[in-house]
Amino acid sequence: MNDIDIKSYMRDVGRRARAAAVIMARADTHAKNNALLAAAKQIAKEQAAILKTNGEDLRAGENLDEALKDRLELNPKRVQAMVDGVIEVAALVDPIGEISDLRYRPSGIQVGTMRVPLGVIGIIYESRPNVTADAAALCLKAGNAVILRGGSESLRSNRAIADCIHAGLEAAGLPRDAVQVIDTTDRAAVGELVTMNEYVDLIVPRGGKGLIERISREARIPVLKHLDGICHVYIDDRADLDKAERIAFNAKCQRYGTCNTMETLLIAEAVAELALDRLVPLYLEQKVELRGCDKTRKLVPQARKATEEDWRTEYLAPILSIRIVSGLDEAIDHIRRYGSQHTDSIVTEDITHARRFLTEVDSSSVMVNASTRFADGYEYGLGAEIGISTDKFHARGPVGLEGLTSKKWIVIGDGHIRS
Amino acid sequence: MNDIDIKSYMRDVGRRARAAAVIMARADTHAKNNALLAAAKQIAKEQAAILKTNGEDLRAGENLDEALKDRLELNPKRVQAMVDGVIEVAALVDPIGEISDLRYRPSGIQVGTMRVPLGVIGIIYESRPNVTADAAALCLKAGNAVILRGGSESLRSNRAIADCIHAGLEAAGLPRDAVQVIDTTDRAAVGELVTMNEYVDLIVPRGGKGLIERISREARIPVLKHLDGICHVYIDDRADLDKAERIAFNAKCQRYGTCNTMETLLIAEAVAELALDRLVPLYLEQKVELRGCDKTRKLVPQARKATEEDWRTEYLAPILSIRIVSGLDEAIDHIRRYGSQHTDSIVTEDITHARRFLTEVDSSSVMVNASTRFADGYEYGLGAEIGISTDKFHARGPVGLEGLTSKKWIVIGDGHIRS
Repeated sequence: MNDIDIKSYMRDVGRRARAAAVIMARADTHAKNNALLAAAKQIAKEQAAILKTNGEDLRAGENLDEALKDRLELNPKRVQAMVDGVIEVAALVDPIGEISDLRYRPSGIQVGTMRVPLGVIGIIYESRPNVTADAAALCLKAGNAVILRGGSESLRSNRAIADCIHAGLEAAGLPRDAVQVIDTTDRAAVGELVTMNEYVDLIVPRGGKGLIERISREARIPVLKHLDGICHVYIDDRADLDKAERIAFNAKCQRYGTCNTMETLLIAEAVAELALDRLVPLYLEQKVELRGCDKTRKLVPQARKATEEDWRTEYLAPILSIRIVSGLDEAIDHIRRYGSQHTDSIVTEDITHARRFLTEVDSSSVMVNASTRFADGYEYGLGAEIGISTDKFHARGPVGLEGLTSKKWIVIGDGHIRS
Repeated sequence: MNDIDIKSYMRDVGRRARAAAVIMARADTHAKNNALLAAAKQIAKEQAAILKTNGEDLRAGENLDEALKDRLELNPKRVQAMVDGVIEVAALVDPIGEISDLRYRPSGIQVGTMRVPLGVIGIIYESRPNVTADAAALCLKAGNAVILRGGSESLRSNRAIADCIHAGLEAAGLPRDAVQVIDTTDRAAVGELVTMNEYVDLIVPRGGKGLIERISREARIPVLKHLDGICHVYIDDRADLDKAERIAFNAKCQRYGTCNTMETLLIAEAVAELALDRLVPLYLEQKVELRGCDKTRKLVPQARKATEEDWRTEYLAPILSIRIVSGLDEAIDHIRRYGSQHTDSIVTEDITHARRFLTEVDSSSVMVNASTRFADGYEYGLGAEIGISTDKFHARGPVGLEGLTSKKWIVIGDGHIRS
């Protein structure tokens, strides 16, 4: 397709999504759940065909790097996980139509809010085909239509999965246009998707930082995103060192590649030696490379010197930067200066220090005596997660179904007029 | 100032606002209320000086049109209204720090949310100097710093009012930079304000459609706005015509120039003649110009023909367009097609029709048997209103203190780690 064709193709996709969104917005819980359960059944039934199609994607992508190929590959276990994920979304409480705080006002009217769908969601993701099922299920449950743009290397797999969701929608009497997979691998389609604000209400990019930065720059539609997860644990001078050891080890070593992994450890000077005596052997045993400030390096000769750049880096790797600070104020200042407003935790037994940290650290998740690794939609009880947001608007931190909705005001009177 | 000077001046304003915001975010309720009450007292005390300064603005603006001069003019009553407004904001419940839904999760951690300030708010307004006090008071109460850019014709008045707020801030030990009035009338300052996203978190334009459109186009920061208030009342075939008469008259005639005034009246065919027989004389008595569809004009010979353009127009004047529709479906379709997602009301005794209208009309306020004129922060119980939003993100409909805040997640554990 040339650029004019792509523009007109994308606008047609947008128009169809908008029309489907009107129907989805008034679909009842029963119909939406039926569609999801029928889609899950269809995915399970079509497992062999989906794996065969995925095999074609893999053969076409044989020159891709190993990590990418791993993300692209489906197997029976991964297909089953998709099926289970869609069934789990069907089991979630329907957020749509929920009326809150309906109260009488002195004028006699009742005023409250009703939760409503956003409309049309655009999801832009890289190679994992399972996002096709996961993201579509969440968008549908929240009464939206969704436009999916996956990685070009997984287009065949995504189409095969979308076919199953279409079967589910049709079985439930809902429009198949509620889920559309963009059927071109041309980059121009993304540029069109993120700027056609008359048809799309929210863009959710799922992928690496490069993708998210590019989308954010181009978009003329709200983007639900986080760019960096530079998470801190601060071991306070009033910390219980058993808890500190457990949390600082778990926050770094439970998984290295996740956005809620600790990248910088801050330690109050008064307990630095004791804390590092316990933690350093644990990190070294896991082959975590240590980088530290000058004070740290006096206590930990194995640590390389941490540069200004280190404090700003999300390693996503077995590397940890360590800074010894005078106390709470310096810790909060460091987080304000270098953090990415993702997730930060204090380890302390002092309620005033805990209270100040909770109030003054301006991150999407702020924790006391808990591992940063808990910053996650499932752990927070959202049931499922469409992404994590480090913006302050609309949705902040782990975002579940509610992040795919909005609220409107409702007013109920009995012939009331304003005087 | 030349453009380079303005850029550097504005960035200095931004830096100072950001620094003040950090202090305001942790200021307690007592300090914030003290600042507001001291500011109110100072405005009352300085009334004569404020009126004298306002007189200078009025003399300098003697060539302005009458409506503008009226908005610009202060008098003892208007100064007192400002004083009362600031005292009312001090009396509002402090939204900051409110912890909600703190619940134990199966892992043992407690997860909840805490309401926090947004940071720095930029307010751009036209001639009314009272916005200086009203908007600043709301921003301060919600723990933010504010940058005010009023109309150039009211700069002296705005400065005099800001001086009083500074006195209040200083009396309470809070930073005077929490409220800054942009001290240049150069348009380039606005361009800088709405794009310096490292220093400003939200822009609130208060003024006409032209201003809001320009700001929205230029901004690289979220804008809290509504462009049009094309509000509808739909008189259903199951309406109580006494209520219909009261509501349709009030929604149009209580005030013509407000955004929640009805611009189009939709009437179900079955009751059109009865309803119009009652309403037309009332409108004509108020000299409301009527424009109608063909069916309307058969019943109301005084009505001019309504054009396609009429259905899309916010008159803000004693003009009303009337359309007779076959019933609920056509009414909802009309609102979807021509409405501005501001406020729409159905008059009906039928619960199923009411339920469908509430669910299917996608506007920031949807009403049953009540006048659209109720769409207002005070009427909804928000205490005060910073603006009305027709966007679906962050804040929708009338926006009070909460719209100047965000929520973050808080997690409290006792040494908990993720397994």
